[in-house]
Amino acid sequence: MLEKNINNILGCDKSYTESKIIVFGAPYDGTTSYRPGARFAGSAIRNESYSIETYSPYQNKDLDDICVFDAGDLELPYGNPANVLEQIEKFVLKILNDDKIPLMIGGEHLVSLGAVRAAVKNYKDLYIIHFDAHSDLRDDYLGEALSHATVMRRCWDLVGDYRIFQFGIRSGSRDEISWGKEHVHTCFFNFDQLDTAADTLKGKPVYLTIDLDVLDTSVFPGTGTPEAGGVTFCELLDAVKKVSELNIVALDITELSPPLDPTGASTSLACKLLREILLYVYK
Amino acid sequence: MLEKNINNILGCDKSYTESKIIVFGAPYDGTTSYRPGARFAGSAIRNESYSIETYSPYQNKDLDDICVFDAGDLELPYGNPANVLEQIEKFVLKILNDDKIPLMIGGEHLVSLGAVRAAVKNYKDLYIIHFDAHSDLRDDYLGEALSHATVMRRCWDLVGDYRIFQFGIRSGSRDEISWGKEHVHTCFFNFDQLDTAADTLKGKPVYLTIDLDVLDTSVFPGTGTPEAGGVTFCELLDAVKKVSELNIVALDITELSPPLDPTGASTSLACKLLREILLYVYK
Amino acid sequence: MLEKNINNILGCDKSYTESKIIVFGAPYDGTTSYRPGARFAGSAIRNESYSIETYSPYQNKDLDDICVFDAGDLELPYGNPANVLEQIEKFVLKILNDDKIPLMIGGEHLVSLGAVRAAVKNYKDLYIIHFDAHSDLRDDYLGEALSHATVMRRCWDLVGDYRIFQFGIRSGSRDEISWGKEHVHTCFFNFDQLDTAADTLKGKPVYLTIDLDVLDTSVFPGTGTPEAGGVTFCELLDAVKKVSELNIVALDITELSPPLDPTGASTSLACKLLREILLYVYK
Amino acid sequence: MLEKNINNILGCDKSYTESKIIVFGAPYDGTTSYRPGARFAGSAIRNESYSIETYSPYQNKDLDDICVFDAGDLELPYGNPANVLEQIEKFVLKILNDDKIPLMIGGEHLVSLGAVRAAVKNYKDLYIIHFDAHSDLRDDYLGEALSHATVMRRCWDLVGDYRIFQFGIRSGSRDEISWGKEHVHTCFFNFDQLDTAADTLKGKPVYLTIDLDVLDTSVFPGTGTPEAGGVTFCELLDAVKKVSELNIVALDITELSPPLDPTGASTSLACKLLREILLYVYK
Amino acid sequence: MLEKNINNILGCDKSYTESKIIVFGAPYDGTTSYRPGARFAGSAIRNESYSIETYSPYQNKDLDDICVFDAGDLELPYGNPANVLEQIEKFVLKILNDDKIPLMIGGEHLVSLGAVRAAVKNYKDLYIIHFDAHSDLRDDYLGEALSHATVMRRCWDLVGDYRIFQFGIRSGSRDEISWGKEHVHTCFFNFDQLDTAADTLKGKPVYLTIDLDVLDTSVFPGTGTPEAGGVTFCELLDAVKKVSELNIVALDITELSPPLDPTGASTSLACKLLREILLYVYK
Amino acid sequence: MLEKNINNILGCDKSYTESKIIVFGAPYDGTTSYRPGARFAGSAIRNESYSIETYSPYQNKDLDDICVFDAGDLELPYGNPANVLEQIEKFVLKILNDDKIPLMIGGEHLVSLGAVRAAVKNYKDLYIIHFDAHSDLRDDYLGEALSHATVMRRCWDLVGDYRIFQFGIRSGSRDEISWGKEHVHTCFFNFDQLDTAADTLKGKPVYLTIDLDVLDTSVFPGTGTPEAGGVTFCELLDAVKKVSELNIVALDITELSPPLDPTGASTSLACKLLREILLYVYK
Repeated sequence: MLEKNINNILGCDKSYTESKIIVFGAPYDGTTSYRPGARFAGSAIRNESYSIETYSPYQNKDLDDICVFDAGDLELPYGNPANVLEQIEKFVLKILNDDKIPLMIGGEHLVSLGAVRAAVKNYKDLYIIHFDAHSDLRDDYLGEALSHATVMRRCWDLVGDYRIFQFGIRSGSRDEISWGKEHVHTCFFNFDQLDTAADTLKGKPVYLTIDLDVLDTSVFPGTGTPEAGGVTFCELLDAVKKVSELNIVALDITELSPPLDPTGASTSLACKLLREILLYVYK
Repeated sequence: MLEKNINNILGCDKSYTESKIIVFGAPYDGTTSYRPGARFAGSAIRNESYSIETYSPYQNKDLDDICVFDAGDLELPYGNPANVLEQIEKFVLKILNDDKIPLMIGGEHLVSLGAVRAAVKNYKDLYIIHFDAHSDLRDDYLGEALSHATVMRRCWDLVGDYRIFQFGIRSGSRDEISWGKEHVHTCFFNFDQLDTAADTLKGKPVYLTIDLDVLDTSVFPGTGTPEAGGVTFCELLDAVKKVSELNIVALDITELSPPLDPTGASTSLACKLLREILLYVYK
Repeated sequence: MLEKNINNILGCDKSYTESKIIVFGAPYDGTTSYRPGARFAGSAIRNESYSIETYSPYQNKDLDDICVFDAGDLELPYGNPANVLEQIEKFVLKILNDDKIPLMIGGEHLVSLGAVRAAVKNYKDLYIIHFDAHSDLRDDYLGEALSHATVMRRCWDLVGDYRIFQFGIRSGSRDEISWGKEHVHTCFFNFDQLDTAADTLKGKPVYLTIDLDVLDTSVFPGTGTPEAGGVTFCELLDAVKKVSELNIVALDITELSPPLDPTGASTSLACKLLREILLYVYK
Repeated sequence: MLEKNINNILGCDKSYTESKIIVFGAPYDGTTSYRPGARFAGSAIRNESYSIETYSPYQNKDLDDICVFDAGDLELPYGNPANVLEQIEKFVLKILNDDKIPLMIGGEHLVSLGAVRAAVKNYKDLYIIHFDAHSDLRDDYLGEALSHATVMRRCWDLVGDYRIFQFGIRSGSRDEISWGKEHVHTCFFNFDQLDTAADTLKGKPVYLTIDLDVLDTSVFPGTGTPEAGGVTFCELLDAVKKVSELNIVALDITELSPPLDPTGASTSLACKLLREILLYVYK
Repeated sequence: MLEKNINNILGCDKSYTESKIIVFGAPYDGTTSYRPGARFAGSAIRNESYSIETYSPYQNKDLDDICVFDAGDLELPYGNPANVLEQIEKFVLKILNDDKIPLMIGGEHLVSLGAVRAAVKNYKDLYIIHFDAHSDLRDDYLGEALSHATVMRRCWDLVGDYRIFQFGIRSGSRDEISWGKEHVHTCFFNFDQLDTAADTLKGKPVYLTIDLDVLDTSVFPGTGTPEAGGVTFCELLDAVKKVSELNIVALDITELSPPLDPTGASTSLACKLLREILLYVYK
Repeated sequence: MLEKNINNILGCDKSYTESKIIVFGAPYDGTTSYRPGARFAGSAIRNESYSIETYSPYQNKDLDDICVFDAGDLELPYGNPANVLEQIEKFVLKILNDDKIPLMIGGEHLVSLGAVRAAVKNYKDLYIIHFDAHSDLRDDYLGEALSHATVMRRCWDLVGDYRIFQFGIRSGSRDEISWGKEHVHTCFFNFDQLDTAADTLKGKPVYLTIDLDVLDTSVFPGTGTPEAGGVTFCELLDAVKKVSELNIVALDITELSPPLDPTGASTSLACKLLREILLYVYK
């Protein structure tokens, strides 16, 4: 009590130096076109995660046994996505250069672009695994190239054809879905083709980006653009497990919007998922 | 911006004349016995539907390619269900006489009676397919013959024995369930007998009425009388697909009550379902 | 209207004397460590249950045909769990001595300890079936022996090794899960081993305690410590049905926290579950 | 605990016979044109009133010392306002004939008409004091003569010109305000002319109807049609005090809509106001 | 019903050409640093305003008698405030050039800058009257020059020293308050110096910008950055009345954030205020 | 970002050693009889206070210029108020012995007792100034001596007759109000007698305890037991200013319950009040 008040996610209280995974928040939702609020995700997870045990009965592992550092939230300006992405890129580069794995908590999905930019600098051969309800492959949105609705298109600019593997997609404009067929791998509605993809990607550097609205609205209503017909928590957990066997070099979870779910169940799920991801990804 | 402000569901911006399907709202919930709010469904769907794409990856079809007109909400008096039903009947008759398909958005389930009255005038041989958690077969409710709890009984008055096919039913009084066994077809809890029914109804004129509380409360909490143990969104989608192969002459979706689900997920689901229904039913 | 205003759960309006099952509320949530509110469960169920029919299409039985008395809520002091447990124990003993089955509505899970103390006095050979997301087997919580997080450990103090059968468990500290393996039966995540347990327990006196957070957060967000990955309503219903074939001498449902689910769907589910439990357990 | 569960407002637990004031609920909001919910007022006040002391430091009196009976809520059908008003009239007549004072808790404002009909039968010379934000003097609303927006016009039908004294009015159509100037006394925005009115009405039989939206929206947001610019709680309390010196033969408070104020402050205020009214009016 | 569905604020259904005042929404809140949601203000006011009468008992005037056009909401990109301001400026210029008065509904306060840019082009001698809780005089906010927290500083860039008259200010950094003392007129906490200001500004072209958080949080909690200690609705109404006697050439109301006030009272107040402003400003 | 994540109230980031005032949270609401939630006050104020400036235009002072340390929240067990009070007493004693001023953020009002116990050990001649809606003078509540409803009676046990000065009281049982008249100074409804009290207490050691429900429910609905008819924010601010001229040795603010006010206005007010208190009390 006589030292300063520390506020960590899931009791991740190791130092930066000793940690292998660095968690941080990117509290930006400035291009959200419908219902903002994702900026509060990091803070909400930090405040609510104490209700979640550090031990996982799914994996019989405990966060207490692994070294993870929570760097808090970046201080990001609203109204300037280019600047936001630069700051994220810079911080992720620092983490990658220190030979650690960054795990970013969005914010809206656009923040992934900053982290992918950093990852692609360090790993020329980067692949992206993308869980989402929306394909996010528009070239622009209301004239803007930087948007939550264009983020995977911007990632494609960086990695090129067929380097992005999408799963769970169930929404998009006709044009972007059509474009996607010729440039990315898309598995609609579920994770059915994940095994095949995992075989392809064995040994390659992989960036995993999870837009949490891939989940069904019943388990995860607390998101800006809910889409009925999504996957269950257990399906997502299985998919994460499978992906964690690959060479994950960086990852993120985005689009939790805590104020949109007054029951708190969406934030609680995100905390639990984060625990499982940390325990799966940590080697 | 210099013309008047138009507010349409799902960008349904064709003219009345050129359209095949006419969507309209019947914002009445005056007999709701428990928690009102269904009156706001049309308005909420109109305001929220812009977050839903016009393209369906389920059907690879786009609303932009079909002709649907949104006529807005009827202006209905509260406190006088007889008058409300008359206005609905009159408007639906107009649509039917113009050789178009009316798609009414409730309101509480009682509004279906107005539309069925119109349909039965044009189609003597009318059958009704009814998706609902509640059988709605009471003869009266607290002494009133016109009520959300009696609506299918009143429809039976019009079409007679075994013309109504109910699915997903999981609530009712002992008396109404017992009565139902001798007068209507009831498939409890799910859509298991829908294939059989569809075979029977091939070529017949069918009115489809969907009380959205047929859905499980997990995906659709925003309804006046939620009942656990319902169907999933995908099950409902499959059922709608099957029914759409029949000769649907009129249809409705009722009992979305937006204020009861502050997450907005229920309204969002209704928007998406509406898109799928329009694309399935439109020939 | 000229007599006093009675407020009963599900129309359970028989007298104490003629009833076989006695329902009562234990509105205590004083040790809840995260989000309180379970104290309001009895009152909420009493107020909302009129939206649920007394007839069950699952069992083709009606509450009108059985004798159940609703004794209202105990008046319990906050800030003194020892006193709370004494009052509960005393009231449950009275019911058991009158050869009736007590069905207690929590409150937080700690209240079960009061009822188990009474049951174990009357049934030396008592077994406990425990549905929950959390194992609740800590020896203390922040130094306190009486807590919602220690309740099953305190029950174990009374009944001893392998008398407790847990189902649906998906959260716990490493220590308590480890301890549990040597002292209780635990079926993680689901009800898979319930058949086996039922065979073992045939004819034995059984106390059934249901922490409603065993349900998935999608169907039951209205609880203090939601845990994703739970069972569905129908899975719980099937499990209750199976258990009801045993010799249930007392039972409870706990941890509904109505203010945490503004949609009301959690309270509604609890009302319906209660109806089904009453109809299953009543012989 | 072995007797049936009684649920009274503010501990008003005397018998009907011995009581001078009879409180009852009229849970009807079927003509509410904007946001329903007033039907839950009686139930909410009954459930929340235990947080309010029975003692008033404003009057140095205690509800324990006076005889008030809470008759519960009338069971009213939705969708049939004529029938609703008949039931209210009948029950109020019974109370008046037993020489007691009825205090009705709405419900929407239309319910007052039922009670006024009864009062005017017993007191030919009846005057009405009306606190409200809205003048409610329309002759019809969307064609309906029975509506929350026409209730004072219907009362005028019964009592005639200048028998109604309105206070706090700050909303109305031009037509109804204009009509009102020639048929009723209207004090806009506040209670400034209440002293004068009280002098005029000394000794006359008075019906007091309080639409709680006369209060400012800051203290009373929980109402169907909130209007900024209203009176404070203390101003309303003073006005009630002044009116209570007259010969009040019947009274009501209407338009609390508990679900519209999730903080509960509106319901809490209504409970406290009800205590003060009971203590002021009881002689 | 056979024509397209029009959705206007307060029934403002005149054509653009015949109208003197043009209302439009600027649904942008992209630089909001705390709690977004102001983007929904125009839509909410449009949907809720039908619960407000068109007649004002304060002024004995009716909106039906004046010519106001509601142009709907501009379609603005998120993530690019410079582009947003350009669009607003362009639309306001069009209105001014047509010799009409633009009344913009924010959005966050930054949108005022777009309208002031247009106004200052047409009126070199422009003065600004500014009602707000916050002085908004920072030179940058987290490095950004365009922000809701810098908007009045940017306006000062355009109009120069002592052309801005602030009222109701009760929050700011030490630096901006200090800077303000040498460059603008600031009346802290209330409108005490409004009479003096009105005398000074008689005959000059005035832009009126109302950040609604100038109101006390009790009457207006639905705003992004609530500040206790504000003015009442009636005080604001009086201030608007006084200002309306000046030569208002353009005006706005900003910072209503409907989702932050679930009671709806904040939106309702904004609708009523808008009616009064229209009736006061219209000559 | 490479150091641990600090979470302070209002940027109070000085060290313990250099600080004169020590802020800390006592997150206990275990005896709350009605609606719990005050446990979240410290955490909410910490998270929301960044929306409040550190500069006060009321005092022309800035928190940046004074030395205040935020010690975070104590870790308190639920279900054991005696233990809770011991921990609070111990921590407050430590602060007092280090010649600093403790400012405790409740939690429910009972937590004040722990701090008063510490204060009375160091200041035999202690007086208490008490702002509250409730007199809190019961000797027990449902049999319990330690309760939010008995806290001032327990304080009286420590300081004796007429050492407690209550202001703003507007609720209590007849017995406790009657008892209070012979043992404490009570100023009902407002602060009218504060000047007189301040004269009496000049130079004496004073403990100031503020139950925030002394505020009117319009500005402060976010509290467990709201009572209409309270003081305004500005009245409270003036009262705090006056009291701050005395010799305040310790103080607290209690009974903010953030989840009960979804608009966030109550938490925001508490943050602002805290800033003003710190600036007033700091010498």
